Formats: sequence, structure tokens, C-alpha cells
Amino acid sequence: MSSSSISSLAAIGEFGLISRITGRVVTNESVIAGIGDDAAVTALSPGMQLLTSTDMLLEDVHFRRSWHDPYRLGRKSLAVSISDIAAMGGIPRWSLLSIAIPADLPLVFIDDFMCGYLSMAAENNVILIGGDTCSSRAGLVLSVTIMGEQLPEQVVCRSGAQPGDDIWVTGTLGDAALGLKLSEDGEPVSEELIARLLDPAPRVSAARALTEAGVVTAMIDVSDGILADFGHIAEHSGVGGCIQIGALPLSRYFCSYSADFSDIPYHLALSGGEDYELCFTADRSNRENISDCMKKCGIAMTRIGIVSSSVGVSAVYPDGSIYKAQRDGFTHFK
Amino acid sequence: MSSSSISSLAAIGEFGLISRITGRVVTNESVIAGIGDDAAVTALSPGMQLLTSTDMLLEDVHFRRSWHDPYRLGRKSLAVSISDIAAMGGIPRWSLLSIAIPADLPLVFIDDFMCGYLSMAAENNVILIGGDTCSSRAGLVLSVTIMGEQLPEQVVCRSGAQPGDDIWVTGTLGDAALGLKLSEDGEPVSEELIARLLDPAPRVSAARALTEAGVVTAMIDVSDGILADFGHIAEHSGVGGCIQIGALPLSRYFCSYSADFSDIPYHLALSGGEDYELCFTADRSNRENISDCMKKCGIAMTRIGIVSSSVGVSAVYPDGSIYKAQRDGFTHFK
Repeated sequence: MSSSSISSLAAIGEFGLISRITGRVVTNESVIAGIGDDAAVTALSPGMQLLTSTDMLLEDVHFRRSWHDPYRLGRKSLAVSISDIAAMGGIPRWSLLSIAIPADLPLVFIDDFMCGYLSMAAENNVILIGGDTCSSRAGLVLSVTIMGEQLPEQVVCRSGAQPGDDIWVTGTLGDAALGLKLSEDGEPVSEELIARLLDPAPRVSAARALTEAGVVTAMIDVSDGILADFGHIAEHSGVGGCIQIGALPLSRYFCSYSADFSDIPYHLALSGGEDYELCFTADRSNRENISDCMKKCGIAMTRIGIVSSSVGVSAVYPDGSIYKAQRDGFTHFK
Repeated sequence: MSSSSISSLAAIGEFGLISRITGRVVTNESVIAGIGDDAAVTALSPGMQLLTSTDMLLEDVHFRRSWHDPYRLGRKSLAVSISDIAAMGGIPRWSLLSIAIPADLPLVFIDDFMCGYLSMAAENNVILIGGDTCSSRAGLVLSVTIMGEQLPEQVVCRSGAQPGDDIWVTGTLGDAALGLKLSEDGEPVSEELIARLLDPAPRVSAARALTEAGVVTAMIDVSDGILADFGHIAEHSGVGGCIQIGALPLSRYFCSYSADFSDIPYHLALSGGEDYELCFTADRSNRENISDCMKKCGIAMTRIGIVSSSVGVSAVYPDGSIYKAQRDGFTHFK
């Protein structure tokens, strides 16, 4: 950390930083007034409802500066929020970003962070319309609010799963958790797994294809592990379900690393967080429609189980034996 | 800090805390889906635009646990955001609250904080619809997002002030800054001044009366001091202005304390932050209309100066001498 970089942020000050960020923001016709007034003013599309979600990210709790390069940290900070809008079947539109900045953070870190944040925004047609900047006495703190919209009939909640529905998941599971485990163990780890951990892709196109087809009964994004997250669907829907471990979609990177283990580390695919895939349920009559959605968006979708009327979520090995959870999804305060 | 209070938060865990908060939330028909799904779903009133603002509050930067009792901290956390919606002439509707909680924070602190937050919400018809909870390794961190709505023609920005307009302010100025100064100096301080500092009242009713009457050309809330905040109006409107120091509205608490100073501490009224009054501009033909608004909402409104076409903001003593700023409004990173 050079003293010149410290003095740079001090030299431009709070309003200088805001101007610096504002200068890079691209806007569109939905934004009546963006950054710079007491509140942003935006116009929803006619007939649409507002979708809102917020996430707070703290240094040394959610991320480490030594691991997360600022560009990918910026991308991920927004990606996890966009993922929440995708999980509701929504169209992401606007974001607010608050940053509490420690005195030792160089200005170039903020520049690279914003570059990443705005690249993720641009890829998803999200406009940064406001936020807050302040000094932090203890680590970088980020708070991202995302707003999206959707027609009432296309909003998908966690509560609609029906007994007999198929349980589906997009993409592959366990990559982020394996990337984290290998990094923590000091093992060599491929760029592909690290990218899943540090630069997850929100499944907006998959969600929109599914909701436009009207085939989804319930949906959630997989941030705490598929067992915990399908558990949320089950709880909100008053149902249960059984996940077939043999059906879990695993990437070739995951499988190649697995060869080094005594057996495939299914617990990473079942309980590892931060994959940001979508888990959804759909009537079995929609299997062909979902196959069409898959072709439309180019994201794999895999059937991994069946919703049951009896409460409780289980995972079953191909030989019929029951998986015993090694750990639950991550929770705070424990 | 008793170990039982520490273990309480650990005992109920993240989801227990969310349930505890959710159980106290009152909702209304505008909320299609509140806390508990990936995103909240709300319906704006027909024809209205969305107003959004966010504020981050950090322990030992924005507040001190030794000063702010949790109930009033909860009230103020939301009040400052509601104030931003008021400053746009908007109707506050929904909020998101993120809390990063240090391990030494007793559960009763969070309970009292939420009690205060929800009391401020109830007084302003704001519904808590979501948020985030996580553990903090360094102090309590709060992030509040507020959403409001307003008809396009009633939204008031900072940019509409015209040369010749009157400059107005609601309520009284300098009370919060005087309360802070006396507290910092270890001097006795009246409950009224402390309440201005720790439990400010957002001027929603005043803002709505003014915007419904259609008399305001520009508006901002006074969080950084009237000189700095009118300066923002001037900058956004491409104008300047002169504030008459003799016209500044001062409370009787402020004046009685001032008697102990060698002269009236005008710098606290001009540059002291956190009063959360509204500064607005209006054509001089609207003075009687504004008097009517004042009666309607019961909040005093005082003319304190005139907008000028030449840029630059000054403050002038009754004898015509120019005020020399002792300090600017608070900014971070300096």
C-alpha cells in the first residue's frame, strides 16, 4: 500500500469519489433521475410489479481482499443480487451500491471494483442509480440493493411446489464449494473452479425462459447448498422432497478433482454454497417444455428429484441408502 | 455483556433472528410478498414513479453504542432514509434493512433497535419488506434502503431553483449540532436538543403539503448543514444564493444555550449537520400558499434568503458583513 494511493482517495474526497463513479455509469430511459439527488426516480414498465432484494458483504466474513481481486469482487457483489431477481423470474433493472471504505484501501481498488460491478450491470441491463459512500474503521463493507420487475402472473415464489413435481437445477453443483475447499487447503485449483467461486453467473436468461414458458411452480437460487435451498422451497410450499444424488449435475472440473478423493465429495454438491444456480420445481408434464427452455437459453437443466407430500427433505444414493448431512448450509451467528 | 445474552443470538441463529423480526412486521395490501422469498414483491400505485434511496450507518463512524440507545438508533436509521423520500416530495412506502451484527451485541439490543425501527416505520406507513442479516467482526453495520412513490408531476428534484426564488427551511436549524457539541464537551444538554440529534423527525407531512400545493421549485433535506445543502441545490440548478443569518430559525433551546456563548454560534445553524429539516425554493408569488401549507402540516417554514443568478452561496449577517465558514459540512475520507 503506497501512501500516494491512500492520499488519492483522501485527495478526491467523498464527492470526488461519487463524481468518479457517476462518470462511468451508463443510463437508460427508465431512469428519470439517477445518482445525485436525494432519491433516484425510475419508471416501472406498465403493469409490472416491483421486485427488491438486498445483500450486505463484509470483508473477512463474505470475502477476503487477499483472495478476491477487486474486479471480480465487483462483479460478484452485483451478481448475487441479480441472482435473487432471477430466482423470482424477474427482469433486473436498477441497483443501489453502498461502500464503506477503510483508510488503507487504494483508489485503484475502488476503480477496479467499480469496473467489475459495472461490467456485471451492463451484461444484465442493470443501471446503477444511487448508493452511499462513507469511511470505515474496520474493513470494506458493501451493500447492494437490486430492483427488478415482472408481470404479476410471471412472478415465481418459493411457495408453489406441488407433490409429484420434478425438482430441477440449472448448470452444475459443488464447483464453488470445491474451489473454496481446494484454495483453503492450499491445493492447486483450476481457473474454472475459481471462476465459479469468485465470478458466478446469475441465471437470468434461464429464469426468463422458464417463466415466459409458464412452467415453474417454485424457484430459488442456490446460495446455501441445494439441500438447504430446496429445503426453503419445501418449507414455504408445505411439502418435502427426495433428491437423487446420482442425478446431481457435476462439472468435468469437479469430476476430475473428485478422482483424487476416496469417493466423490457429494457433500460439496449437496451442501456447498455459492453456486448461484437455480433450483426449481415443475409438473412432470412440462419436461419437454423445459427441454425447449434449455435450448432457448443455452443453460443445462437437470432433473434431480421429486417433490413429496410428506415434509422433510432427503438425499438418496444410487444404492438407495440415505445421505447423512456432513454440515448444513452456511448460517451466521452459529 | 452477559454470556446468556451472547448465547441468545447464537442460540436462535440467523433464521431464528429473521423469524423474530418478521413476526413483528405489520404489512399492507401493497406488499404481494414480503420478507422470506428471494426478493420482495410490491405494487406501486397506478401512475406513480418509484423513488429509491439508501444509507449505510457504521458504528463509531455514524453512531456510538455508548450514546445512541438502540431504540432511538432504530428510529433514526429509518428516519434519515424517509427524509430523503420527503426531500423528493415522495410518499414513503417500503424499506429493506441489512444488519451486520458483532458477536458481543446482546439480543435485547437488536430487539430494542427493531422496536424503534418499526415504530418509525409505522408512523410513516412504511412496511419492512426484506433485508439481510450477517455476523460482523468489527462493529454494528446498518444499511437501510427506502422506497417511495409519487406522481411524475409532483416529484421535486434539486435542480429546479430559479433566480429570484425565495429560499425556505422547515423547523429550526442547529439543534442537532449543538446537542452533539455539548455532549462532546461533556456539558449538560437538554433532552430537547438530544432528541433532535438522536431522534430526528422526517418532514414528510411538510413535504407532501408543499408538493400537493405545487409551489416548490427545488428541495433537499438538511443533513450536512444548510450552507452545504443549499449549495447542492444551487449547484444542481446552476444558480447561487444568499442566506440571511438574521432570518435563520433557531429554537428556544438553541437560543437559551447560546446565551452562555460570547455570541450566537451561527456556524452550528449554518454548517451543523443532521437537522433533517427541508430546505426548498419557491417563487415569491407563493408566499401565501406556503403559509397555508404551514398551517396544514403544523410545521414552521421560514424564508431565509434569495436565489441569485450568479453562482456561489453566501451568508450575510444583519449588519451586511459576510459570514466566513468555520468548517464545511461533514464529508468522509478527509
